[in-house]
Amino acid sequence: DVSFDPKEHQHLRYNPLRDSWVLVSAHRMKRPWAGQVERPPEEHIPRYDPNNPLCPGNKRANGKGNPDYDSTFVFENDFPALQPDAPDPGSDQDPLFQSKAARGVCKVMCFHPWSDVTLPLMKKEEVVNVIDKWAELVEELGTIYPWVQIFENKGAMMGCSNPHPHCQVWASNFLPNEPALSDRCQRAYYEKHGEPMLLQYAKREAEKKERVVVESSDWLAVVPYWATWPYQTLLLPRRHVLRISDLTTEEREGLAAIMKRLLTKYDNLFEVSFPYSMGWHGAPTGPYLKEDNSHWQLHAHYYPPLLRSATVKKFMVGYEMLAQEQRDLTPEQAAEKLRNLPEEHYKTR
Amino acid sequence: DVSFDPKEHQHLRYNPLRDSWVLVSAHRMKRPWAGQVERPPEEHIPRYDPNNPLCPGNKRANGKGNPDYDSTFVFENDFPALQPDAPDPGSDQDPLFQSKAARGVCKVMCFHPWSDVTLPLMKKEEVVNVIDKWAELVEELGTIYPWVQIFENKGAMMGCSNPHPHCQVWASNFLPNEPALSDRCQRAYYEKHGEPMLLQYAKREAEKKERVVVESSDWLAVVPYWATWPYQTLLLPRRHVLRISDLTTEEREGLAAIMKRLLTKYDNLFEVSFPYSMGWHGAPTGPYLKEDNSHWQLHAHYYPPLLRSATVKKFMVGYEMLAQEQRDLTPEQAAEKLRNLPEEHYKTR
Ligand SMILES: O=P(O)(O)O[C@H]1O[C@H](CO)[C@@H](O)[C@H](O)[C@H]1O
Ligand SMILES: O=P(O)(O)O[C@H]1O[C@H](CO)[C@@H](O)[C@H](O)[C@H]1O
Repeated sequence: DVSFDPKEHQHLRYNPLRDSWVLVSAHRMKRPWAGQVERPPEEHIPRYDPNNPLCPGNKRANGKGNPDYDSTFVFENDFPALQPDAPDPGSDQDPLFQSKAARGVCKVMCFHPWSDVTLPLMKKEEVVNVIDKWAELVEELGTIYPWVQIFENKGAMMGCSNPHPHCQVWASNFLPNEPALSDRCQRAYYEKHGEPMLLQYAKREAEKKERVVVESSDWLAVVPYWATWPYQTLLLPRRHVLRISDLTTEEREGLAAIMKRLLTKYDNLFEVSFPYSMGWHGAPTGPYLKEDNSHWQLHAHYYPPLLRSATVKKFMVGYEMLAQEQRDLTPEQAAEKLRNLPEEHYKTR
Repeated sequence: DVSFDPKEHQHLRYNPLRDSWVLVSAHRMKRPWAGQVERPPEEHIPRYDPNNPLCPGNKRANGKGNPDYDSTFVFENDFPALQPDAPDPGSDQDPLFQSKAARGVCKVMCFHPWSDVTLPLMKKEEVVNVIDKWAELVEELGTIYPWVQIFENKGAMMGCSNPHPHCQVWASNFLPNEPALSDRCQRAYYEKHGEPMLLQYAKREAEKKERVVVESSDWLAVVPYWATWPYQTLLLPRRHVLRISDLTTEEREGLAAIMKRLLTKYDNLFEVSFPYSMGWHGAPTGPYLKEDNSHWQLHAHYYPPLLRSATVKKFMVGYEMLAQEQRDLTPEQAAEKLRNLPEEHYKTR
């Protein structure tokens, strides 16, 4: 009998946040890649581009002008997927043709006046400004909307259509699928085990160490045991925190520091500005503010697509779309690679 | 008060096969696209390439030679994600670190000896051969494995690394996430309504007509009411059929004919060999063969990524990964476009 080696033998791992499984087949990394090669991420972006609608002082598609901002800058998305006043579709009674009203707002937030910086290259105080603005938006939009999704699509590979450092904030009158699922899973765990799932998880990972990428007194970033994307990470506070707006001044400074460390490692992995989609999940807001949300723990997910190099990504396609997500290296291998990378950015070395 | 227009007003639609919602924001198509432009799909592929491991008579990575096949050809994947004899990981008792054994087989199936044809360009009898082989593999692997996933990744954009027309068949000792979810949803519907969900759905769509792309006496292809990918389709028989192996000779001929019509329309949409991932879902097999699976209806999902042109795809990124899927044109708009396209392939016109 051969004894089990996760790097050699495929197996399933359970994702307790999504109540689903991932197929880990690490030996697949050995196969040669003859498929699509991406254009490497753009490395030469001008600090100011007179034609870029996100730069300070420029005009946007709707004719409005940006102020000459020198920190963060928030505006309403000119082509919003959610608007505050959409009429109700009036649901067909048929259970097979159900629809519901979708109302909300979509905002865009520039991180910095310069186009040629990214979060890991910004000063710590500048990243703190971004975090403060995130907290402010969650607080403000969360007074009415049950869900405020902060997300960043970084890099053209992740559908980002503007190289200026920015994220988006979409608030909705409904709890979207992903947070609804995560809410159910965290609640069930809390009821069964009497402690928030992700708080226990962070403690266990901090002891085990093998999936830790970076940590500090307040924060922890791991490649989760159930990661699906090759270098996926989960970033979370060590203290029980429900929402980003609940973070103390010190915790925000700690977050800025750990984000810079994590994102520097990401960039150093293939020596390119690492593409990803990331976003924050915290306890729901609006009508949920009045309820007990002790089962929730604030966290950010980072989903980066690159697998082998700056130009070869993981394709989540046929088997993944129709059956189950599959990964080609173990989370422990990914964490070790990231952990061993320098914390000084390759561009400033 | 403005009256609701699905083409103008965002709304949510319910997917009863996945118990989840999709955000439809059709007005988003109006925004200009300044993001990533893909390389158009390769149009000039040699009929025979001495270096292509999938061509008849050639050697593969493991040194084995292909026969001089003149129809379909099936072989074991040289870098399988699933193997029959993987050792058991032995699950940690901790609910946060659960693993399970994953066993199975991965096969590759070439559709045709020529590299320069695709399903819509093959003769109807040749497509029937493919369907017969699919049925045979489901029957054969289904004697032991609970799930046999047939899927095709078509085009480099969908992670396909070899232009020779082929699909894959992965059989596993577990029911993967997607079919497990679909099984639960179909069962709950059947228990409540006394008829298989997709059988009722097909009838209602055939009456409504607005989402039908192609139909015949035995088959129907629609852009489902809850489609997430821009030109996603659902292909299904009109008769209650549990598995692809249950199709009659006539139904297989009808399937070959409707597949050719659907895929020709796909290619005609942007006049390129249309990339997609597709796969079959039918009642589970192995130990499930002994159970009542009346709630199941055989169907194929087609998930094509292109949105605006041969080179601009839909990115399922930040909001979609972290919150909820979002689409930029209505399923009715997509169906109408496809329906109005000629049924003669642009390459043979
Ligand atoms: O097996 P292939 O064609 O080499 O690989 C392709 O399909 C697999 C199954 O969907 C995916 O896991 C891979 O990411 C993709 O590139
Ligand atoms: O809003 P953007 O940056 O134009 O668009 C990007 O993010 C959206 C939200 O994840 C996606 O729906 C789009 O497909 C993507 O291109």
